[in-house]
Amino acid sequence: MNNFIFQNPVKILFGKGQINEIASELPAKGKIMLTYGGGSIFRNGVYDQVKEAIKGLDVIEFGGIEPNPKFETLMKAVAICQTEQVDFLLSVGGGSVLDGSKFIAAAVCFQGEDPWDILAKQAEVTNALPIGAILTLPATGSEMNGNSVVSRIETQEKLAFGSPAVMPKFSVLDPEVIFSLPDRQISNGVVDAFVHVMEQYLTYPVNSPLQDRFAEGILQTLVEEGPKVLANRKDYEAAANFMWSATMALNGLIAVGVPQDWATHMIGHELTAYHGIDHAQTLAIVLPGMMNLKRKNKKAKLLQYGERIWGITEGNNDQRIDAAIGKTIEFFEKMGIKTKLPDYGVPSDTITKIANRFQQRGFKIGEHADIGPEEVGEILRSRL
Amino acid sequence: MNNFIFQNPVKILFGKGQINEIASELPAKGKIMLTYGGGSIFRNGVYDQVKEAIKGLDVIEFGGIEPNPKFETLMKAVAICQTEQVDFLLSVGGGSVLDGSKFIAAAVCFQGEDPWDILAKQAEVTNALPIGAILTLPATGSEMNGNSVVSRIETQEKLAFGSPAVMPKFSVLDPEVIFSLPDRQISNGVVDAFVHVMEQYLTYPVNSPLQDRFAEGILQTLVEEGPKVLANRKDYEAAANFMWSATMALNGLIAVGVPQDWATHMIGHELTAYHGIDHAQTLAIVLPGMMNLKRKNKKAKLLQYGERIWGITEGNNDQRIDAAIGKTIEFFEKMGIKTKLPDYGVPSDTITKIANRFQQRGFKIGEHADIGPEEVGEILRSRL
Repeated sequence: MNNFIFQNPVKILFGKGQINEIASELPAKGKIMLTYGGGSIFRNGVYDQVKEAIKGLDVIEFGGIEPNPKFETLMKAVAICQTEQVDFLLSVGGGSVLDGSKFIAAAVCFQGEDPWDILAKQAEVTNALPIGAILTLPATGSEMNGNSVVSRIETQEKLAFGSPAVMPKFSVLDPEVIFSLPDRQISNGVVDAFVHVMEQYLTYPVNSPLQDRFAEGILQTLVEEGPKVLANRKDYEAAANFMWSATMALNGLIAVGVPQDWATHMIGHELTAYHGIDHAQTLAIVLPGMMNLKRKNKKAKLLQYGERIWGITEGNNDQRIDAAIGKTIEFFEKMGIKTKLPDYGVPSDTITKIANRFQQRGFKIGEHADIGPEEVGEILRSRL
Repeated sequence: MNNFIFQNPVKILFGKGQINEIASELPAKGKIMLTYGGGSIFRNGVYDQVKEAIKGLDVIEFGGIEPNPKFETLMKAVAICQTEQVDFLLSVGGGSVLDGSKFIAAAVCFQGEDPWDILAKQAEVTNALPIGAILTLPATGSEMNGNSVVSRIETQEKLAFGSPAVMPKFSVLDPEVIFSLPDRQISNGVVDAFVHVMEQYLTYPVNSPLQDRFAEGILQTLVEEGPKVLANRKDYEAAANFMWSATMALNGLIAVGVPQDWATHMIGHELTAYHGIDHAQTLAIVLPGMMNLKRKNKKAKLLQYGERIWGITEGNNDQRIDAAIGKTIEFFEKMGIKTKLPDYGVPSDTITKIANRFQQRGFKIGEHADIGPEEVGEILRSRL
């Protein structure tokens, strides 16, 4: 096990009815900006629930934060926060609204010239407005970490930043929010959480049996509970188990003391940037190609994954790895997510564009930093 | 899954050499009280390492905190903290030193008349001196929670309190501290951590597959790594895995949304109070009796435990439960801990005394609150 530092102070309020309890978590004085997305919270009743819970507090609203939140949109909120002297952000939505709110929180307090530097130059974020989150869509894990991913229309870029300063002070996880979600968001959420775990698990062994078992525990739970949530949206227990799994998938715990990959995410982001494909869909496309290309470097973990998650114990190593990849694809498809580039109408020249982008950036990705433009091209061509 | 609130802000610094990094975690100004136990830290070099790391800071020392820390001793430290206006407690030792430090931290700031009320009357602890911990013995999990157990010589009582206010600000977990520990402390630590998990796992199912798998992951890791640590004290990897397992066993994570038991601990505490038996030894005595007596209420979890931890899949339910109890006893004995009362010279009239104490207290224990004086007697008699 590698040395590590771990701290996660986010307060989780989990379960039905917890939205009603948020007033005691909010500052009694000061101005709160309620941030949200395209308006699903008006249709599913969450907006009314939140407004009722924070009655009497000084609240302004900023709606319209997009899936893959846009820098251009978020900067409008930053301006309002500065004019209106907002003290607290209350994010009501999924990972995109929360990621967007994290960027707003950091940008409002940013001391440098251009807040875009937070993303483009990884300018350090030491200070941010405090954030509370009401999660309406389990997927990204943003509710219990300090990560944020933001896109910029102008440059077709999708970039990430991270800081403990933007970890939510509290996050409300009420599984009932799942009841009104469309299939596509459930499918995306389950696959997104699944691949988050894989990025922290499917690398090489460093003698970390507990981290491995926690990661496998999340994968197994997603494999079991994901299809239940898809089949019956009112299954509270399945919703709760999915929701908690998605949070645990990316709150830093399974990453302690182990190598991480994240190459699948980085390649996937480019597919979203060029074609607007849903984040989880891009992961479902890329991951099987990654597993196949890196079958040597990842051999030990691929075999362990195959055996412990899918019960694959027969055949030689390559056959077992093929079976593990096959089972992974099967699971994604069962969750309603297609896994090939043509399924999304992506032409093969996009592959060249993406490879070129990695060429320009000049650094390699993956746990061994050995995935460069050529490997990116090879992974994507295997998904045609 | 039940509703829950979870927050654990303790910062963990894990790995070799981390003790050297503590200066940046400590307040630059103000007086620090270094608390420790019987002096093992002088023999194993940890004291020198800590002193070197905090060179230049304003530090006073309070040594001599006992295993099962005594109220009488701790109150002496409280008086010194008040006279010397101590601002921060740096606990260097195992769970007892840290539990003692937590009580000191709470008692110094206690507004009521008698700090004993914190333990005897569960007087609320809302404020405490900040604490940092250098852990020298993995076992209790105290390094990542707000719990403390304190004994009083005068009344032969061993009582607990808990408050977020006494959670350490940081805890250093350097697995190398294990290298110099005697067998008995390793044995105790592994069994203590194991039973912590069991108290949060071996109840009744509430559809919490992820919590179950996390708990099982810790149990499996302790079963694998515990004997390795006992056999080779210099096995850093095994030490690290044991240490992290012991922390995860009682930091609140596996307890979220599930029922808890803790009856084994409460009965065990009485054996320590009357006979000074090591905490983990008392747990190893009581748990098999508890599993046996509660085989109906705990049936589903006992069968799951038997199958997932010990691979027990043959026989009828009672046979499988017997086998699971047998495997548990075998594991404790393999770790060098005896599991019967006569092994510790406990006479049968102690059973009556303990049962009477539960009679006087007037409340029942266990996840169904159905273990009263009679059941306590029955459990203990089964361990003669």
